[in-house]
Amino acid sequence: MPFFSAITTAADCKARAGILQTDHGCIETPIFMPVGTQGAVKAIEHRELDELGVQIILGNTYHLYLRPGNDVLSSFGGLHQFNSWNKPLLTDSGGYQVFSLKDLRKITEKGVEFRSHLDGSKHIFTPENVIETQRIIGSDIMMPLDECTPYPATYDYAKKSADMTVRWAKRNKEAFDNSSPRYGHTQFLFGIGQGSTYPDLRRACMNNLVEMNFDGYSIGGLAVGESAENMYEMTDISTDCIPQNKPRYLMGVGTPENILNAIELGVDMFDCVMPTRNARNATLFTSRGKINLRNAKYKFSNDIVDPEVITYTSSFTLGYLRHLFIAQEILALQLATIHNIGFYLWLVKTARQKILDGSFRQWSKNLQQDMSKRL
Amino acid sequence: MPFFSAITTAADCKARAGILQTDHGCIETPIFMPVGTQGAVKAIEHRELDELGVQIILGNTYHLYLRPGNDVLSSFGGLHQFNSWNKPLLTDSGGYQVFSLKDLRKITEKGVEFRSHLDGSKHIFTPENVIETQRIIGSDIMMPLDECTPYPATYDYAKKSADMTVRWAKRNKEAFDNSSPRYGHTQFLFGIGQGSTYPDLRRACMNNLVEMNFDGYSIGGLAVGESAENMYEMTDISTDCIPQNKPRYLMGVGTPENILNAIELGVDMFDCVMPTRNARNATLFTSRGKINLRNAKYKFSNDIVDPEVITYTSSFTLGYLRHLFIAQEILALQLATIHNIGFYLWLVKTARQKILDGSFRQWSKNLQQDMSKRL
Repeated sequence: MPFFSAITTAADCKARAGILQTDHGCIETPIFMPVGTQGAVKAIEHRELDELGVQIILGNTYHLYLRPGNDVLSSFGGLHQFNSWNKPLLTDSGGYQVFSLKDLRKITEKGVEFRSHLDGSKHIFTPENVIETQRIIGSDIMMPLDECTPYPATYDYAKKSADMTVRWAKRNKEAFDNSSPRYGHTQFLFGIGQGSTYPDLRRACMNNLVEMNFDGYSIGGLAVGESAENMYEMTDISTDCIPQNKPRYLMGVGTPENILNAIELGVDMFDCVMPTRNARNATLFTSRGKINLRNAKYKFSNDIVDPEVITYTSSFTLGYLRHLFIAQEILALQLATIHNIGFYLWLVKTARQKILDGSFRQWSKNLQQDMSKRL
Repeated sequence: MPFFSAITTAADCKARAGILQTDHGCIETPIFMPVGTQGAVKAIEHRELDELGVQIILGNTYHLYLRPGNDVLSSFGGLHQFNSWNKPLLTDSGGYQVFSLKDLRKITEKGVEFRSHLDGSKHIFTPENVIETQRIIGSDIMMPLDECTPYPATYDYAKKSADMTVRWAKRNKEAFDNSSPRYGHTQFLFGIGQGSTYPDLRRACMNNLVEMNFDGYSIGGLAVGESAENMYEMTDISTDCIPQNKPRYLMGVGTPENILNAIELGVDMFDCVMPTRNARNATLFTSRGKINLRNAKYKFSNDIVDPEVITYTSSFTLGYLRHLFIAQEILALQLATIHNIGFYLWLVKTARQKILDGSFRQWSKNLQQDMSKRL
């Protein structure tokens, strides 16, 4: 069985339904992957993720490398053993987090030197050692070290940056090919395309990566401040470059609308902190738009969050959920997180069904209209 | 069926196993009641409380009265409807919280005037209106307004205070007898004994309450700074005054050791913030003593918290739980809370079994020895 198989591609757009096969289980695409930065998705239990249909979660290499650290992860036999999550795991390379440290990091051809945001200690990430760390983490799907080009970037900077990302990709791939999984299960490596908002740079970068034959391809450096139009254009260009038989992952995206539009453009995988972070800020996503639970209009509301998306949170009224937020109860964060992750999973699961039955595009259009109603 | 039946009393001590019958279900005593101050137990879901064998939770009238407020509670049809907890609920009268406001309250014969800790607004609690509020809350078991005598208190102050508590108890009882449940289910009212650490005051106060024939009796004003010896002595005196056919509730107590010793003295019901609050501070109760998860010695630990007490938290190692606390993950609070409430419920459930099979005292002694080992 191949790592990825595209089962159906829509007739009227690039949307597709597929399956990713890993040693920790199958993943039906399009899929949303909740972010579990430090080996845990914030404010939700693993068994609740299971219950919501979550098939894969993310871990952040930068955070895990600093805490609990490679010594602890190695001693436990990897992240799956450490955090008792026995489904697929994807890790980023740590690059994105390091690049966002701004004053604490220095980029060279070798890699990126940085100081820990926790204790100021000095470290370096290279294309080689991020592979080693991800071998220790034991994630099913690994990311290479790339430079997430900041936005806006001049053409010149974006080109230099994308070129370095390509050179690093080669070193990442070599380090990957010259090393083995530590815990007996197969690990896959993606390439990450950059190129800012310049079509020719995006194309060149992705084509270079495709030549190296990665297991899948990520579209990086988007959702960093550019317009939605720009984001969709770059996504469209990127998915055109990626072979049909390889999975496509749009990193860090996004709103429900972004996800629907990117699915239409042929993206298979998504991650974003939005559902979990917004949940903790009392904002719930629904099939009729967003709800801000702090709004006084919900004080006496007997309604549930979203009749389309039934989760444990549906056992409670908006009035009670609002009270929990106003009273600063931790349970508020738990219930809001359950709903929002439930909503994102409902979104991609329904999208998949609609792709399979040929009605994706119309459904997506209608849903986006419904979602724009409430704020 | 009577509200309370004592099934078995130990031969070698006053410990007893009983059943409380309410319209929201039976409660097997001795029982521990997790504290759900604002209509939610902190950092744990209702379904998780169920799973751990929780049979009744507390609500705090002071907090609920201020937020969400009687208007919201009344509009929803009471706290059970509002928070979707369909098992028994017990509410305090709000007195304890108000008395702890120190500079913000004034006690008169009429009741206690206070300012909200939330917005400084002025309110008064009287023996009559706390009954009314608890009718609106719809708790299965209600508490009367009493003065929780501060510790230490002079004999003179303690006597005056206990005398007022008795006069208030009479007014509480009248207000209760002259009002009806709002939501169709039966509500019960307890009396609360005071008297500080003075045996004759304790006896006089409780005997006066017993004459008024409450549905059950609480032992108040303990665990407020007095010695454990004092607390046990006052508990012993109090349970001697309370008729065998009435439930006995030791308010706000306590450590696992306190609970075992008070069960031996004939107490049936307990509540305390200790398991939930300590959980949020990384302290876990176990059958071998307390664990502080911040301790570096757990960094690489593959052990589970307590092989005697299996909960969802047992799916994880001490090493991972420690990591979650160090990394400040909300999941740390969730998993620690599940374990600690699980431990307290295991404690009272096992105590009940041991009372039924006649081995309570010896078991309690052994367990207390085991629990004193680790710190």
